[in-house]
Amino acid sequence: MIDEKGILFILSGPSGVGKGTVRKRLFEKATDLQYSISMTTRAMRPGETDGVDYFYKSKEEFENLIEQNELLEYAKYVDNYYGTPRKYVEETLAKGLDVFLEIEVQGAMQVKDNFPEGVFIFLFPPSLDELKNRIVNRGTETEDLVLNRLKEARKEIEMMDAYDYVVVNDQVDHAVAKVEAIIQSEHLKRERIAKQYKKILEAE
Amino acid sequence: MIDEKGILFILSGPSGVGKGTVRKRLFEKATDLQYSISMTTRAMRPGETDGVDYFYKSKEEFENLIEQNELLEYAKYVDNYYGTPRKYVEETLAKGLDVFLEIEVQGAMQVKDNFPEGVFIFLFPPSLDELKNRIVNRGTETEDLVLNRLKEARKEIEMMDAYDYVVVNDQVDHAVAKVEAIIQSEHLKRERIAKQYKKILEAE
Repeated sequence: MIDEKGILFILSGPSGVGKGTVRKRLFEKATDLQYSISMTTRAMRPGETDGVDYFYKSKEEFENLIEQNELLEYAKYVDNYYGTPRKYVEETLAKGLDVFLEIEVQGAMQVKDNFPEGVFIFLFPPSLDELKNRIVNRGTETEDLVLNRLKEARKEIEMMDAYDYVVVNDQVDHAVAKVEAIIQSEHLKRERIAKQYKKILEAE
Repeated sequence: MIDEKGILFILSGPSGVGKGTVRKRLFEKATDLQYSISMTTRAMRPGETDGVDYFYKSKEEFENLIEQNELLEYAKYVDNYYGTPRKYVEETLAKGLDVFLEIEVQGAMQVKDNFPEGVFIFLFPPSLDELKNRIVNRGTETEDLVLNRLKEARKEIEMMDAYDYVVVNDQVDHAVAKVEAIIQSEHLKRERIAKQYKKILEAE
C-alpha cells in the first residue's frame, strides 16, 4: 500500500555482548531483512561467491572507493581491508528492503557519520560481570587480554549517546523481540510515511 | 532494572476510524497500561465511582483548573465540561506506569501543546470509502451528517503532521500489534534510558 524506502538498521555494542547471536536469531525469524554484504580485499576462498559472501576487490579498487566515500565504514585487519559498500546498501533500500548491519562500535560510528539517517541500536550487557564472563568463556583470550577488552568495553559503552535505541541483552529471545519492535515501529514513523498517506487520499 | 518514568501515549484520528475498538482490544492484552481517567462536571450516575469512571467536579472547580492550566485538554459538550487532568497523568507516569489516552483530534492537539513529550499515534483509515462506510454503518446519522463528518475527517487527516506515528486501521489486530510495537520501542529509546544505564555501570 505504502511505497516506502527501506531502512538501514545498525546493531552494535561492546565486544562480547552477543551481537552475532542476536543477529543470527533475528534472521531466522525476519526473513525480509537483507543482511549487508561486506566488501573485502582478502582472497576469495573455496565455496565463497562474489556478491554473496563478500564483494571481492583489489587493494587499489578498495582504496579508490575509500577516496570516493563509497564505503559507509571500513577497517584494515592484518593486511586486508573490510568495509560496507554504500552502493549496495542504497540500492537495496531503494527496492524498499531494510538492510541490517551488525558491526563493532568503531565501525558503527563511521556509519553514523556517513549515513546518519540509519537507525542505530546499542546492545547493552546485562552487567559488566556478565560481559566479563562472556569474554572469558570464549576461552581464546589470556587474563591480560580479558582485562583489556573489558576496559575497551567500558569505553565503548560511553559511546551509547550516538545511538537511537538501547536494548539490554539479558536473554537473546527478549533482545530479538525488542529489535523486532524497533524495526516495526520505525516503519510507522509519521515523518517517513505521511507524504505517501496524503497521496492516497488525494488519489481518491 | 531501569528506574524509568512512564510514557503518555495518545491515540487519535478522524471520527469513524475505530479508535475505541483499537483501544479496547489493546487494553485486553496490555494490562499494565493505565487508562487516563477524565474529569467532568456532569453529575455522577448510579453505579459510577469518583476516581474510577471520572473525577467529578463542580463547574467552578473545573473552570479554576482550566485557568491554572491543570487540564491537558478539555471540551464542553452541551452544558458539561470533560477533560484530562494533568495531575492524574503526571502522578501515574511518576510511578513508572504508562498512561494511554484515546481522544478526538481536536483534544489531541491541545495535549500536544500542553504535554509535547507525549507519544502521538494517528490512526489512519484504510481508505476514505471505508471511513464513509463505517460512519454510515453506525446508522445514527443522516446523509447530510455523514457528508459533514467525512469532510471533517479529511480536515483531521491533514493534522497528521503533528503526530509521531501513523498506524493504518485496516484490521484491528494488525493495528493493535503496531501500537504495541510503538509502546515497546519507545521504552528502548536511548534518550530516555541512557542515563540510568550509565548509573548501573558506575555502581558496579
